[in-house]
Amino acid sequence: MEYIKNIREKTPLIHFITNYVTVNDVANATLAIGASPIMTDEIKDVKDMQNICNALVINIGTLNERTVESMIEAGKRANELGHVVVLDPCGVGATPYRNEVINRLLEEVKFDCIKGNISEIKAMANVSSKTNGVDACEADKTTRENMHEVFKFAKDLSIKTGAVIAITGPIDVIADSKNAYISDNGCKEMRAITGTGCMTAGIIAAALVANKDDKLKAATAGVVILGLAGELANKYAKGTGSLHIGLIDELSNLNDNILEMGAKIERFEI
Amino acid sequence: MEYIKNIREKTPLIHFITNYVTVNDVANATLAIGASPIMTDEIKDVKDMQNICNALVINIGTLNERTVESMIEAGKRANELGHVVVLDPCGVGATPYRNEVINRLLEEVKFDCIKGNISEIKAMANVSSKTNGVDACEADKTTRENMHEVFKFAKDLSIKTGAVIAITGPIDVIADSKNAYISDNGCKEMRAITGTGCMTAGIIAAALVANKDDKLKAATAGVVILGLAGELANKYAKGTGSLHIGLIDELSNLNDNILEMGAKIERFEI
Amino acid sequence: MEYIKNIREKTPLIHFITNYVTVNDVANATLAIGASPIMTDEIKDVKDMQNICNALVINIGTLNERTVESMIEAGKRANELGHVVVLDPCGVGATPYRNEVINRLLEEVKFDCIKGNISEIKAMANVSSKTNGVDACEADKTTRENMHEVFKFAKDLSIKTGAVIAITGPIDVIADSKNAYISDNGCKEMRAITGTGCMTAGIIAAALVANKDDKLKAATAGVVILGLAGELANKYAKGTGSLHIGLIDELSNLNDNILEMGAKIERFEI
Repeated sequence: MEYIKNIREKTPLIHFITNYVTVNDVANATLAIGASPIMTDEIKDVKDMQNICNALVINIGTLNERTVESMIEAGKRANELGHVVVLDPCGVGATPYRNEVINRLLEEVKFDCIKGNISEIKAMANVSSKTNGVDACEADKTTRENMHEVFKFAKDLSIKTGAVIAITGPIDVIADSKNAYISDNGCKEMRAITGTGCMTAGIIAAALVANKDDKLKAATAGVVILGLAGELANKYAKGTGSLHIGLIDELSNLNDNILEMGAKIERFEI
Repeated sequence: MEYIKNIREKTPLIHFITNYVTVNDVANATLAIGASPIMTDEIKDVKDMQNICNALVINIGTLNERTVESMIEAGKRANELGHVVVLDPCGVGATPYRNEVINRLLEEVKFDCIKGNISEIKAMANVSSKTNGVDACEADKTTRENMHEVFKFAKDLSIKTGAVIAITGPIDVIADSKNAYISDNGCKEMRAITGTGCMTAGIIAAALVANKDDKLKAATAGVVILGLAGELANKYAKGTGSLHIGLIDELSNLNDNILEMGAKIERFEI
Repeated sequence: MEYIKNIREKTPLIHFITNYVTVNDVANATLAIGASPIMTDEIKDVKDMQNICNALVINIGTLNERTVESMIEAGKRANELGHVVVLDPCGVGATPYRNEVINRLLEEVKFDCIKGNISEIKAMANVSSKTNGVDACEADKTTRENMHEVFKFAKDLSIKTGAVIAITGPIDVIADSKNAYISDNGCKEMRAITGTGCMTAGIIAAALVANKDDKLKAATAGVVILGLAGELANKYAKGTGSLHIGLIDELSNLNDNILEMGAKIERFEI
């Protein structure tokens, strides 16, 4: 497959309503992989911006009441236009307000992919059953031992939402209602830089726009691209600062050959 | 001329109302060239902040209704005080709301320099004639072949607004109502990092404050400084992450000798 | 003492309501030293977020009317829960609105540490006596000659607020009502990168949560950690871009041995 070539040739225009913590990294990672980011969260602006874009990424990391309305407006418009929509439920489960917002988003917007860490994804399931997601904090990370439970979990959420579910962690799980991929790409040092998850959401959106044939495979490519870039950068990084910069360097140099050689993925029927 | 020496000696204090995507880069680039940035967008704060600053840079990249009012308030105060005011009409032409806001800004605030890419500058002209700027998307980049059309275009906007017009691209054009400079500095890799335009606006503001004699030349220096820094960094960058960091390194090391040796500019009467 | 080991083992969860200019650096610096940052400024979110955190850092750099209310709400909740609360009065003294906000914060929230540069700290004292802090701009930097005046000043503010006062500059001063430390760590090049102060506030918060025995020593450790990291990075930085990244690298590699060997501190009774 030519996931990256397709992104670089089609240069998807991706509209982000995202947190102000990692927004610069998200823009640079999106550019580095060959797509084009645009950020706006003003309600008077978001529908018209969707009209000229190919995708929407919603990240609730630094949500506020004003931007939540913009997320919903933009999401509805993206759905009307058949655009790719990715949700990053950043910090869901941490507070009741975040759970409430995620509930509203799930009710009003249809997502192609939902990407979070295991705690966030577990909290989301709780959210949809009207509890507050605090229990998710106890969740174990995905391991070879518990991964079939995680598949089950992801499968259920995929059936409920219609979205591909991407659960990042030491082992990444990407699943729909029938199949799951796991990826061993990435490295533990990446947990000490902020924004890897937010960047992943953008790259997934780019991959989904440019590779329409198979959503699950495209989302998996998105997750692997970010993990592999970090892994390659970690070979020469001298700390988390240079890992951060090296990750963007590697994204900008990545091609489908490197991706195919470097991808550590396995497929499961679930 | 001693553009950079003057900035480093006068350390202009520049007030930015700018987007949250590239604001950190803008602050670091402004510091690297020897000026001093301060960011505030609260309407209760902006007039008083202008009182102690030397310049204002308005960038509408992630505008919202609240900050638009602050832009206008700050702009009016800057005008009253005779401060340098630079406009970066980031994303104008993409949505009607952005066009409307630029219209208001042009009506209520007088700018010393307006800096954008060719699509934004074309959209601005349309905006002022009350259309929505969508056509600007078809605009060609500036080349040796079409540059006299771009000069004409910039000249008209300069006459209409009283501002120096800086149009960044593969060939940069900086023009007022009588003369134009073109610059071949910069490198195509810079298009894959976010914020080069936003940083340029800040450096132009610093150059204008510290070099009062000739607005056109000072604005040209601002454009060349950023382009040259990127060009120098690109010699050793390993990707867009290290290009981004190298660009800041080069800005912090730049002096007027390097600038004079590296500037690739030509002057035209228009 | 094992300041850093304690942070890395306890991984304090720190809630930041901070400016959008340096927020990414704050998050990465907090992660690099072994703590865990979370940013939210929505009033519906901040109390619940405090419930699951260990500390709160308030930075008024890009304050607005909405986020000021969130700062106060979060601060009150943090006080109720006995959490560490750090104030970075970024830009106080520059405008009356900032002074007013700092006044309200001091009235409504109790801080464990207040960290600013000498102008900000002087402005704060003026603020509490209802003047507008403009005079602070004339303040001299701390030197060996005037440091006893600075101690007096910090001591008074510490008595008034109950907080440890950290005044960063060429010589850093960290004082409570009885003792003061000075630190010669850091390097002048750090003044040309934005966010070193904001990062220091986060590291102080992490140090205070993880080292409960002695607030003054823990806050001093926080200041020294950031200064030392910059100093070490400056040995190989090629400009302010690589200094910025190197500083994060050094933070991520720092341990208590390096800290003890590198700390240039002196203690005074005041």
